[in-house]
Amino acid sequence: MQYFPASLQDLTDQFSKLPGIGGKTAQRLAFYVLSLPENEAQAFADAIVEAKRMVHTCPVCQNLTDKEICPICDDDTRDQSIICVVAEPKDVIAMERSREFNGLYHVLHGVISPLNHVTQDDIRVKELLQRVAKGGVREVVMATNPDTEGEATAMYISRLLRPMEVKVTRLAYGVPVGSQLEYADEVTISRALEGRQEI
Amino acid sequence: MQYFPASLQDLTDQFSKLPGIGGKTAQRLAFYVLSLPENEAQAFADAIVEAKRMVHTCPVCQNLTDKEICPICDDDTRDQSIICVVAEPKDVIAMERSREFNGLYHVLHGVISPLNHVTQDDIRVKELLQRVAKGGVREVVMATNPDTEGEATAMYISRLLRPMEVKVTRLAYGVPVGSQLEYADEVTISRALEGRQEI
Repeated sequence: MQYFPASLQDLTDQFSKLPGIGGKTAQRLAFYVLSLPENEAQAFADAIVEAKRMVHTCPVCQNLTDKEICPICDDDTRDQSIICVVAEPKDVIAMERSREFNGLYHVLHGVISPLNHVTQDDIRVKELLQRVAKGGVREVVMATNPDTEGEATAMYISRLLRPMEVKVTRLAYGVPVGSQLEYADEVTISRALEGRQEI
Repeated sequence: MQYFPASLQDLTDQFSKLPGIGGKTAQRLAFYVLSLPENEAQAFADAIVEAKRMVHTCPVCQNLTDKEICPICDDDTRDQSIICVVAEPKDVIAMERSREFNGLYHVLHGVISPLNHVTQDDIRVKELLQRVAKGGVREVVMATNPDTEGEATAMYISRLLRPMEVKVTRLAYGVPVGSQLEYADEVTISRALEGRQEI
């Protein structure tokens, strides 16, 4: 006995394919869509097709964009000689929020992770090397996540960049602003000590 | 500065309208859709439109269906003289899973809830009364949730049904099978005691 209409079951299945969405949640979301007015359901469907159709990676920095060149790469007021390397598009947003960085970005779209079968060829390393090889780049700031894989990826890329006469730096490690020392792990504290600065 | 392409932002906004989906999750889901092959993204969009277009309520029992009459109401082997009243379509599934009930259903699409501004006119009570008034119904089993609102709704409907010479029953209260007594709340235990049966 099929309990739900086929088209409702199909929509539930589609939702349950999404990451982190289980069967119960998928059902709830499908019911929600049914409760929407026709035009809102259509708008949701259109947004999916539209995003998929319009969004591609910027040929320069590999960030997601719907323009030919992304707005950051296209911005003449930004320092073209410094490139900040991040793992994911959302990391660009995190960096931009700090309002501290005025250079360009390079989005790797992942980190090297042998356990997940992600090799250096699966992320946009080649594109970065080509950008640097073209010249005009003074410094590359590695800003991959401060975890094992982000670390390893940063090390790998910095080794490739070494012969290219470009300064390679890394975001400073230390205790997060506004955090409490008693909750900081020992590795973070020892890195913060190593990197201590005069005040 | 707009960090994301407009169409990606739009898709993220659409996801974040879904119940229980916050900003971060919406972003993750939008990225996931971008990572899908074109045909799968299209299939997702189609499923939304299709479900919205095909699914309606059964004119008899008010359950969701894409047929003219839902498969349960259309099934001649089921007992047409007993109607089980549930709050939501998913409750029909819960009942069917027990394989114990062979009558028909009536889906209220909600329960009376003054706090949420849901009155008896917002749920399908009228349709139930019309069904019973037509005759041929011997018993109505109230199977709304055993909480305050489900309870109140069941009481309200049973009062309306009383003059119609139909037996109105309610699912038994008691300790859930497979549960542990020490975790059962006192109201459940007192109801289980009241309803105790000879073995």
